Amino acid sequence: MTQFNPIDHPHQRFNPLTNQWVLVSPHRAKRPWQGQTEAPALKPIVHHDPNCYLCAGNTRITGDINPDYTSTYVFDNDFAALLVDTPFYNQDQDPLFKIQSVRGCCKVICFSPDHSKTLPELTETAIEAIIATWIEQLNVLGKTYQWVQIFENKGPMMGCSNPHPHGQIWSSDFIPNEIQHEDQNQRLYYKQYQSSLLLDYVQKEIKNKERIVVEEEHWVALVPYWAVWPFEILLLPKFTVSRLNELTISQQKDLAIILKKLTIKYDNLFNCSFPYSMGWHGAPFNNDNRQHWQLHAHFYPPLLRSASTKKFIVGYEMLAQVQRDITPEQAAERLRALSTIHFKDINP
Amino acid sequence: MTQFNPIDHPHQRFNPLTNQWVLVSPHRAKRPWQGQTEAPALKPIVHHDPNCYLCAGNTRITGDINPDYTSTYVFDNDFAALLVDTPFYNQDQDPLFKIQSVRGCCKVICFSPDHSKTLPELTETAIEAIIATWIEQLNVLGKTYQWVQIFENKGPMMGCSNPHPHGQIWSSDFIPNEIQHEDQNQRLYYKQYQSSLLLDYVQKEIKNKERIVVEEEHWVALVPYWAVWPFEILLLPKFTVSRLNELTISQQKDLAIILKKLTIKYDNLFNCSFPYSMGWHGAPFNNDNRQHWQLHAHFYPPLLRSASTKKFIVGYEMLAQVQRDITPEQAAERLRALSTIHFKDINP
Ligand SMILES: O=P(O)(O)O[C@H]1O[C@H](CO)[C@@H](O)[C@H](O)[C@H]1O
Ligand SMILES: O=P(O)(O)O[C@H]1O[C@H](CO)[C@@H](O)[C@H](O)[C@H]1O
Repeated sequence: MTQFNPIDHPHQRFNPLTNQWVLVSPHRAKRPWQGQTEAPALKPIVHHDPNCYLCAGNTRITGDINPDYTSTYVFDNDFAALLVDTPFYNQDQDPLFKIQSVRGCCKVICFSPDHSKTLPELTETAIEAIIATWIEQLNVLGKTYQWVQIFENKGPMMGCSNPHPHGQIWSSDFIPNEIQHEDQNQRLYYKQYQSSLLLDYVQKEIKNKERIVVEEEHWVALVPYWAVWPFEILLLPKFTVSRLNELTISQQKDLAIILKKLTIKYDNLFNCSFPYSMGWHGAPFNNDNRQHWQLHAHFYPPLLRSASTKKFIVGYEMLAQVQRDITPEQAAERLRALSTIHFKDINP
Repeated sequence: MTQFNPIDHPHQRFNPLTNQWVLVSPHRAKRPWQGQTEAPALKPIVHHDPNCYLCAGNTRITGDINPDYTSTYVFDNDFAALLVDTPFYNQDQDPLFKIQSVRGCCKVICFSPDHSKTLPELTETAIEAIIATWIEQLNVLGKTYQWVQIFENKGPMMGCSNPHPHGQIWSSDFIPNEIQHEDQNQRLYYKQYQSSLLLDYVQKEIKNKERIVVEEEHWVALVPYWAVWPFEILLLPKFTVSRLNELTISQQKDLAIILKKLTIKYDNLFNCSFPYSMGWHGAPFNNDNRQHWQLHAHFYPPLLRSASTKKFIVGYEMLAQVQRDITPEQAAERLRALSTIHFKDINP
């Protein structure tokens, strides 16, 4: 009888952060694709677009005028999904019609005044300024809200409606589902092993090397053992830390380096501005018991085979279980092999 | 102080089937959209396409030749994500690297030999034949596999790579995540209330009327209180039944009627072939204790504002919590108001 081999045989892998299984069908990568393809995003080369609501000096839909900012710039989302003053309401008598009002706020962070750039094209100093802005915002918003979600949707394929380099921060007076799961699973692990799930994990991955994409002094970017998206990345600190605002200056500088290297590799994979959603998960602000929490960032990129072919998370995935085609090890190997010099700088 | 009003104020609603919350931001529907738009799928008008691997009489990539079928036709997926003979393997010593081999099979069901048609354009008799095929397959596959996922990805936007009307069936020797959650939550509800979660729910919804889209003698299509996708539908029986293969002939006939009416309304919403992923959830075959299970189908359609503008489930949604803009009640009202005569039959 043939021996099981994860490169050839369908299997499932367990995500200990969410307590969910991922179906892996490695033999299926050979499937030809005749379905929908995506138009690669054409990044404008103008440094300032008079019609962009994020460019410096421009007027937004509300009539507000952006200042002549030179580094990062934060403002309240003009179409916020959460509002600061929602009247209180809570119905939990009928278990089938539970509803509660929520409060929060949504902010936009312009990463740079230069309309033509994306994260991998910014200097390390510019990326350090973004990290400093994330930390500043977390310091303020964490005083009012239980959860502060810092994230970036990059590229039209990921629902981003403006090519100007920017991210978002949505804060809320409730702990969102995903954070509840990560909180619970990290807590259970800590209780059982008296150590942190993700710190144990990163140490094993560093020893194993197979899934590592970039390793720096303080940080590691790897394709997690349980990755769902083809080129998903988990960005992990090699030291104990529960929130972004606990990072030292040298840990921040090293973070800027790895963010730049990782996103350059992403762009180099299919010679395009690589789309993704990324965001930070750290200890929530609802209580002080957080020794089980380890800070990390997730990158969820949709592309599978080329700049125009994405993985569809549809039917079976939505109704039954997420499924991937190439193995996490194959994805890591491809990303690892890529240069950390941006393709635009090689063939200008 | 203003009173809370679910039409104006951000809130969250609870999904008792999955034990998850959904963020609802009704005030946000006014947001202008400058992001990616989708090319509406142009349905071919040829009844037989010599290059289609699903049309009758054609040769598939494997060299197999499709028979000259006249109703439905089922065959093994040429690029199956699951294989029947995977060698056994199980590693659960290290909680961070759990992996297990899986076995299963993937089938394709052609809904009709007519390449040009989609579900809403088939006759009720043709839809009855699809339902009969689902039941036949469930009878056979349920003997071997714990879970049999019947589903349809409709339209290129939902990763469907061939316009020929077809669905899929993926069976497995494990219970996928989503089914585990629905199983557990229905079981807990049954234990607590001695009645079925979804039967109690449908009865309350029928009385309330607000979220009903189509109601027939035996079936109801409604936008669930906790819907994630803008025009999501939960299709529910008004009687106790745990699996598709327990339906009487008259319940099957009535199901064909409601499937046709619902999918016609979907097409009429934006005058296009409305994309969605749909699938059936019934009691799994891993044990006989299933009085807590109520059969149902989910429809997850991506469109939000027009045939070319979809809802992106990205950044915040992937990292924190799913979020919707219009309320389920607004979505139901719009769908309810639409004709059950297909737009192509009105303006031919
Ligand atoms: O099997 P198909 O139709 O080629 O593929 C489609 O459905 C599958 C099951 O939902 C998904 O895994 C694929 O991403 C999607 O493109
Ligand atoms: O806020 P934006 O960038 O306009 O909108 C984008 O990100 C949001 C948060 O992930 C999503 O809810 C939207 O569907 C998406 O289009």
